[in-house]
Amino acid sequence: MAHHTTRRAFLGTVGAAGGATVACSSGLAGGPAEPALNHEAIPLDRPLAVEDIPTPALLIDVATMELNLAKMAAHAEEQGIGLRPHTKTHKCPLLAKRQIEMGAVGVCCAKVSEAEVMVEAGIEEVLITSPVVTLDKIGRVVALSKKSSEVALVVDNRAAAERLNEATAAAGVTQRVLVDLDVGTRRTGIATGEPALQLARTVGGLSNLDLRGLQAYAGHLMHVHGHAERQERSLAALEAAVETKRLIEDDGIEISILTGGGTGTWDIDSQVDGMTDLQVGSYLFMDEQYRRIGSRDGDIFDDFETSLFVQVTAISQPVPELITTDGGYKAFASDADRPQLVDLAGVVYGWGGDEHGILRIAEATRPPQLGDRLWCVTPHCDPTVNLYDVYYPVRNGRVEELWPISARGKSQ
Amino acid sequence: MAHHTTRRAFLGTVGAAGGATVACSSGLAGGPAEPALNHEAIPLDRPLAVEDIPTPALLIDVATMELNLAKMAAHAEEQGIGLRPHTKTHKCPLLAKRQIEMGAVGVCCAKVSEAEVMVEAGIEEVLITSPVVTLDKIGRVVALSKKSSEVALVVDNRAAAERLNEATAAAGVTQRVLVDLDVGTRRTGIATGEPALQLARTVGGLSNLDLRGLQAYAGHLMHVHGHAERQERSLAALEAAVETKRLIEDDGIEISILTGGGTGTWDIDSQVDGMTDLQVGSYLFMDEQYRRIGSRDGDIFDDFETSLFVQVTAISQPVPELITTDGGYKAFASDADRPQLVDLAGVVYGWGGDEHGILRIAEATRPPQLGDRLWCVTPHCDPTVNLYDVYYPVRNGRVEELWPISARGKSQ
Repeated sequence: MAHHTTRRAFLGTVGAAGGATVACSSGLAGGPAEPALNHEAIPLDRPLAVEDIPTPALLIDVATMELNLAKMAAHAEEQGIGLRPHTKTHKCPLLAKRQIEMGAVGVCCAKVSEAEVMVEAGIEEVLITSPVVTLDKIGRVVALSKKSSEVALVVDNRAAAERLNEATAAAGVTQRVLVDLDVGTRRTGIATGEPALQLARTVGGLSNLDLRGLQAYAGHLMHVHGHAERQERSLAALEAAVETKRLIEDDGIEISILTGGGTGTWDIDSQVDGMTDLQVGSYLFMDEQYRRIGSRDGDIFDDFETSLFVQVTAISQPVPELITTDGGYKAFASDADRPQLVDLAGVVYGWGGDEHGILRIAEATRPPQLGDRLWCVTPHCDPTVNLYDVYYPVRNGRVEELWPISARGKSQ
Repeated sequence: MAHHTTRRAFLGTVGAAGGATVACSSGLAGGPAEPALNHEAIPLDRPLAVEDIPTPALLIDVATMELNLAKMAAHAEEQGIGLRPHTKTHKCPLLAKRQIEMGAVGVCCAKVSEAEVMVEAGIEEVLITSPVVTLDKIGRVVALSKKSSEVALVVDNRAAAERLNEATAAAGVTQRVLVDLDVGTRRTGIATGEPALQLARTVGGLSNLDLRGLQAYAGHLMHVHGHAERQERSLAALEAAVETKRLIEDDGIEISILTGGGTGTWDIDSQVDGMTDLQVGSYLFMDEQYRRIGSRDGDIFDDFETSLFVQVTAISQPVPELITTDGGYKAFASDADRPQLVDLAGVVYGWGGDEHGILRIAEATRPPQLGDRLWCVTPHCDPTVNLYDVYYPVRNGRVEELWPISARGKSQ
């Protein structure tokens, strides 16, 4: 095979990757400028009945989503904590703006290209929650900070911080940063305690970095089953973050942000003294994976209601006990179990490959028929949303506009 | 929850869904016309070194892909069989045209919206390999047949065939159809033998349908482990299709096409007397799932070489035995095991959620370092391709243009 693996330590990458070629906001390195993405609602010529939406399609039950948004906003206000919702879930500037209008202090983005979409749409307070180490991505972050001084990036490594400082100094901007703490996920972040203090001192001493605070996201705990265990483990993980915050503050460094938490620990992390805001994402949509983590009083986590659905159509029936739909691995992310059918007792979804789902209907009380449109709860909302270009927002059984998922595919 | 499931049998759907609202080629029902998609290669301002491609990115090793294309084309020519490659793998008109230039009799599309992209790009001979039953999709197929008389659709159901005939008669076009046979997958298709004959008679008697032949795709056999077992089972499945073909021909109905087969049975199905062409898809790229099915002489299926890779970057190292990359569930489809790292012995990829992969490097002879770009073989190529907007075609370590994946997300 004519490929090879590039094994270049990032400390030795000065030069080739730093040019404008890889800094374009489209993510299409070196390519011509892309047409501006559409971030606003796209009105339809005339309303569309739900039954007439071409399937597979991603539907939002707007009334339910609005209840979820309002419940979380009210909780944050009551608890005196901020919300910094994660746009990796919805990838939709229109929804990010809605969250900000309802009181969020800003939004999170998982990747630089996702942040580029949000900033382009006019959202200023954006936190990039995953570190970057290479010059191409650092260049893009600096370009973003030129557009909005409120863009922040997490760092978890001294060399990367120094590299970022060089780039920001060269560009004449100050870059907001948070130190990313590893509170047990072993994915990103520097160890709590002394290593984090050392990094905070380094960052604090760099001319063009503005250390705003700490990130402590316990991604490994969001889906722990059972509220009691989730609470015990999350409080323990965040205790290490709070102690680290004190350690750094005792060193004379100001820490104004301690951000973390997610939908699974929304009512736990908000009790932690010192946490300033919650990075909740899935709460507005919900999915089957979250429903199964259990709530305070039962096996189903129903603190928020499901508002996101994939609508599929039954298109073939090879044998009486099965019926085949038009939604498979390209319609649903498959990392977390299978889609669940809504209001169809006894019907079980089975994967039918890339393009199909095969429903077992032998036990169904009311078996679906060819041509029926069926609603499915997604196994995992974030990567499923990432498969679609638009949402169909449904109000009273009708769709009057489309909502573009402008940051779909923006994983760079 | 304010949703409901529509349970309308497709025989009762005349009316609401038949209008122009749901027939637009963009798939955005009722919306304004989309800008024309770009189907041609997008030249870069200057060549891009592989190390400078923003990650995660989808790379093609062009030399290897060309060997795969040539090997399959030569095999088909030697065996006197046609190729009708499936575009559900690459979703790229540029590659579809390449396959046709190399002798393919046409291409397959999984869905109507995928076929719309190929026809818009100038490809006329398109077979839609999945049945449609609802008026919105039937309307879109008829609209396509107005643009290209060579568009064909599979049918597996009498009522759907009659509905299709009504729509084509109303539009004044003749629609090419194939009868889709269920040769054991139990996903789509009518039973072989008498039921298929009855459907062929029905279709043959409908004024505006032109019955061209049969489809017999044994999707359940493509990944059977071991060449001998795959051969035995595929020949048995296709024997039923060949017998059905004879039964229909003995009834006086002409059958000029018997299409089926895939990459897993490429050298098996080509031996079946009566098969006219092979619907091979993955052979040009390959993936880990196919590599594991075994070949004639070993555990690894290496009849074709891997030419598709996802390039990721090592971005964080929370502990010495792990290093984290920027590619997770949004960079790789996860229906089939995990990504495999190229040329990195002892390194094991673990899922790190939507945005990350976490590599175990304790056993690595040459552990990757922060900033390194790493190449991964995809677990399953088709749904992974569906996550990206462009290919980066690599020749001699450089990229000079981008290839748009124009049919990405076109699952409708």
